[in-house]
Order: sequence, then C-alpha cells, then structure tokens
Amino acid sequence: MSRRRGEKVSDLTTQRLSLYLRCLEELDRQGTDTISSQHLADRFHFSSAQIRKDLATFGEFGVRGVGYSVGKLKVSLIRILGLDREVGVVIVGAGNLGMALADYGGFNQKGFRIVALFDVAPGKVGGASRSGAPILHLSRLGEVASGQKVQIAVVAVPAAAAQSAADAAAGAGIPALLNFAPARLRVPPSMTLRNVDLRTQMVSLAYRLAATRRSAGPRRDHL
Amino acid sequence: MSRRRGEKVSDLTTQRLSLYLRCLEELDRQGTDTISSQHLADRFHFSSAQIRKDLATFGEFGVRGVGYSVGKLKVSLIRILGLDREVGVVIVGAGNLGMALADYGGFNQKGFRIVALFDVAPGKVGGASRSGAPILHLSRLGEVASGQKVQIAVVAVPAAAAQSAADAAAGAGIPALLNFAPARLRVPPSMTLRNVDLRTQMVSLAYRLAATRRSAGPRRDHL
Repeated sequence: MSRRRGEKVSDLTTQRLSLYLRCLEELDRQGTDTISSQHLADRFHFSSAQIRKDLATFGEFGVRGVGYSVGKLKVSLIRILGLDREVGVVIVGAGNLGMALADYGGFNQKGFRIVALFDVAPGKVGGASRSGAPILHLSRLGEVASGQKVQIAVVAVPAAAAQSAADAAAGAGIPALLNFAPARLRVPPSMTLRNVDLRTQMVSLAYRLAATRRSAGPRRDHL
Repeated sequence: MSRRRGEKVSDLTTQRLSLYLRCLEELDRQGTDTISSQHLADRFHFSSAQIRKDLATFGEFGVRGVGYSVGKLKVSLIRILGLDREVGVVIVGAGNLGMALADYGGFNQKGFRIVALFDVAPGKVGGASRSGAPILHLSRLGEVASGQKVQIAVVAVPAAAAQSAADAAAGAGIPALLNFAPARLRVPPSMTLRNVDLRTQMVSLAYRLAATRRSAGPRRDHL
C-alpha cells in the first residue's frame, strides 16, 4: 500500500480533533460564539499550545485575541474528520455488545448510520435494535454492504468468532474494521483495522488506585 | 488533592504498559522466554526506544543483547499496574451494555472481579449475567461496595441517568468511576473519573477513509 497524504496525521491527533469537535458541539448548543484555545484546553485538560498546533496543521482557524469561531471551527472539523458525508456502518454480532453499540448515543448519528446488524442465530435474525436497525443473516452481508455503501464493519462477536467475522467483512469489500473482540485479527492490507480494548481503561484506573495506595502507605522499594 | 508520586506517569504510558502486558501474556502462553524491545515494538507498532524509555521509568528490566525475560517482565508489569491485588468492580446498569461488559473477555479476570451489576428495573433485579454476576437493586450499592471492597464503578446507563449513577457510586464511597455513558459527569475531587468515548474510534476510522478518498480523488484545496 502506498503512503497516503492524509496518513501523516497521527491517530492521537485524530482522537484529539474528535474531542475538540464534541466540545464545540456542546458550546454551539449552549449558544457560545467564540472560544479561546485556553478555554478549550481547560475543558479537556490539554495544553492550549497542543490545540493551536493540532489546528494549525489544517490551516488558520483562530483570530488573535478573539479565539476560534465555534460554528466555523465545528464545520471545519466535521469536514476534516470526514463526517460531512454519512458513513454507513454494519455491526457483526447481535449479542449484548452489538445491540448496545447499535443504540449507543453517537454511534448512529452525526455522520454515522447503522445500516444493519448481522448474526446467524435464528432467534435473532429478523429482529431489530431498539433504534430500528434490522438484524439480518450474516450470509446477506455482501449484498447489503455493496448496495448501501457500507464503509465500516464493527466486530462485536466473541473472540472465537472474530476472525470469521473479519473475513466476512473483507469478503464483502468493506474497507474498515472496528474490532471490539479481545482477539488479534488478520485482515488484507487494503483494509484498515482498529482494535478497541475496553480493558485498557480499567487497567489505567487500577494503576491510579495502586499509585494512590503506594503514596498513602509506607514508602516501598521502587519495585 | 495533593500531588501524588504515582501520578507522574501519564495515562498514555499506563495504556502502553497495559498493551505490553497483553503481548507478554500472549508470548508467555506460546512458551517464549525472552524478547527484545525491537520485537515487542514490531508487534504493536511502537518504537523500540519508546518501550525502553517506558520500562526504564520503573527500573532496569532488560539485559543488553538478550532482551527482556518474558516471565519476569510480566510479573513486574502486573505489580506496577496494580493488578497483583484483585480489584472489585461493580457495573451500574444491567442493559445491553452492562451485560456485555460483565461478560467481556478480560473485564472479569486477571486482576478484576465483577462483584455485581446494579439496576432498578424489576424485570432485571434478581437475575444474573452469563458469567454469573448477580443483578442487585441499586439501593444496595452502598452495602455491597463497603462489604466487598469495590474500587471501580462502571457506569453503563443511558446518558440521562449517568449523573445519578455517578452520585450513587460516590455516595457508596467507591473511589474510581469508568464512564461509558456519552455524558459529562461531575464527581467529588477525591474520585478518579475516566470517560470512555466509544465514538472516538469510529471517528478516527472515518477520518482514515476520508483521507484515502482525498488522496485517491482529484487534488483539492487544503480545506
């Protein structure tokens, strides 16, 4: 795969841009017209220099002494992040996790549309999520994916079934995979894979608690 | 809140340590005795310099020319991350998301124990997750939290109910909160709050797809 122009921006930057967008949407709802990088920074515990650097990558947005226009910056970020066109999403696996994701606030709005869930269990196929996305048989993935221009497949099956779910998505020509299963997947080089490890945040919290214990208790060896 | 010794290590470092641990667990299962920082780096697309820097923070682990002992490093990371003592976890909300998290691979093992789920719906209270965690009435949170030394409350309720779930956890004296609801929560200063935004990863994927389109299509303005 050749190197692409857009890939120079790191995932961490993209994640920060996504957070800025959430903040701007909130400010917009509250009727705020302009905001300084310092205010944005305070809100998300970033440095204002970081924000200015991130946004400068994409052009000049701020006005010195005035700050950013909330409305304009929001629209720009939506465009930068590729959310100005609706992205079709399917969820493979209609168990608890798949159903939760189908109804998750933000998954099925603002740039994303959950086209359908897919499963093989007879008791599930033919049903629908609370938000109205139909549950279809996995054998129909290819047909639906090409007809509805699906761009992201979310893998929400148990670890043991994750590779065959990924294979089905690849076979259906879906270009990107968001994997929630705690399994390492092999995908074709043309496919973009992102793994979500829900455990990482729990571990990070456990670390904070342990650090608190260590500093509160008697001083120990530095391991 | 006073500055604590352990807090000097950033969340990003903690998340990387958590990833290293996962990799080491896999290597250990496969019977690998030693691994170089380069091999670890290749596996997770980090730089080997980054790995050496992260681990050097906690002492000297590697042997030049030999690499790290997989078993020893694993045990050290478990200790550093605070996973050598079992952390009691409760999940507030026994809907699809709460039930999915209760059975999620890795959430209920290796350092974490799901003590119970809590809900108020009569149809749910009295039931259990597939993994056997009981669903109790939310009014019992305080009693269970103090009796079972619960340290983390996972918020898995809709956005509108998230603040009262957080308040209940704070009232029960639980020191840390892992919030999956797409809502901004207010917690007492003594409480550690971590927000998990499931949407961020979707946005990051959408960005990659947009970047691919931009580079494949005719050259456009830099916005």
